[in-house]
Amino acid sequence: MKSSDKTDHRKVLWPGSTQLAPVPAVLVACGGSKGWKNNLITVAWAGIACSHPPMLSVAIRPERYSYRIIRETEEFTVNLPSADLVRQTDWCGVVSGRDHDKFAESGLTSLPSEKIASPIVAECPLSLECQVKQVLELGVHHLFIAEILAVQVSERLIDAKGRFQLEKDGLLAFAHGHYYNLGECLGHFGFSVRKKSGSHIRK
Amino acid sequence: MKSSDKTDHRKVLWPGSTQLAPVPAVLVACGGSKGWKNNLITVAWAGIACSHPPMLSVAIRPERYSYRIIRETEEFTVNLPSADLVRQTDWCGVVSGRDHDKFAESGLTSLPSEKIASPIVAECPLSLECQVKQVLELGVHHLFIAEILAVQVSERLIDAKGRFQLEKDGLLAFAHGHYYNLGECLGHFGFSVRKKSGSHIRK
Repeated sequence: MKSSDKTDHRKVLWPGSTQLAPVPAVLVACGGSKGWKNNLITVAWAGIACSHPPMLSVAIRPERYSYRIIRETEEFTVNLPSADLVRQTDWCGVVSGRDHDKFAESGLTSLPSEKIASPIVAECPLSLECQVKQVLELGVHHLFIAEILAVQVSERLIDAKGRFQLEKDGLLAFAHGHYYNLGECLGHFGFSVRKKSGSHIRK
Repeated sequence: MKSSDKTDHRKVLWPGSTQLAPVPAVLVACGGSKGWKNNLITVAWAGIACSHPPMLSVAIRPERYSYRIIRETEEFTVNLPSADLVRQTDWCGVVSGRDHDKFAESGLTSLPSEKIASPIVAECPLSLECQVKQVLELGVHHLFIAEILAVQVSERLIDAKGRFQLEKDGLLAFAHGHYYNLGECLGHFGFSVRKKSGSHIRK
């Protein structure tokens, strides 16, 4: 394989910090049981934790309003915003459910989940229904490890052959304090060892 | 806030699966101590776990060659590839360190870490030096929770004012089996509640 021609041997040392990027910027919806009303919180500290059983992690500060809701109800949904929802996504991350009805004020619509009591966000193309399995109290964030029980997908993004057409919408990414949409598709997993290049592989 | 005009109330239910996206596509480098040679493995199941102390999670299958290296040495680096490294990144995810010297064959260059024995990848604009704190045996993947001890940044991406210019390179994202580069910057965290719009905010 050809080496990169970038001269990149000069490095600057920074203290440890949360520079992993890009990460998702997702709307976590919670409430709907145990006396809690529905709420939304935007989370970028989220990742896949396991393929089987399907699990993900979400990091939330204990002082956030949603923290106690999720800790008590042990469930939430992870809703992937399309890029056109960037303003609502940002807003749900900077105001508190203690002072705002975030569904009502953001104009986002709640729909029922199939497997849990927490709502999903209708406008998001994908919603993952999650059940908390364990909580790690790591530091200023506690990490919720949750199983993904079900996924709801917007019907308008499924083509005639049943394939999900993500690129119709685009998803929101977060990197170093800024939101981005996804750009060009550069290849599929495994493209580097395929004998014949597929039509959607650029190089 | 204005509601979305998309009619998105028709949903299709899928079984639970790892549909969180976009996620990072990172080169995890390990080895360099306890008799292990340097190795690389590409990981998309990674996320930030805590801001203070800075921690991240990386999910790896126990049958992967790198798994035992990281389990024994309790350290690794997370190297963020720029979009032009997509082929090397993909290749390091589909072949095994049992059969390949991935640094040599990929053309990627190892440099020493500052705090740990595992190498960093010179060509990556950002490298995070990580020390394992705990391992969760969740299922087909085990989740490594690690503290980020230090970050190495390519000097060529730091401007005269000391700011990191991520957009000079672009980073690689992974979503539903495909690699993407980051597209347009849509705003910074908190832009929705700022009185005056900054110049780099689109709407």
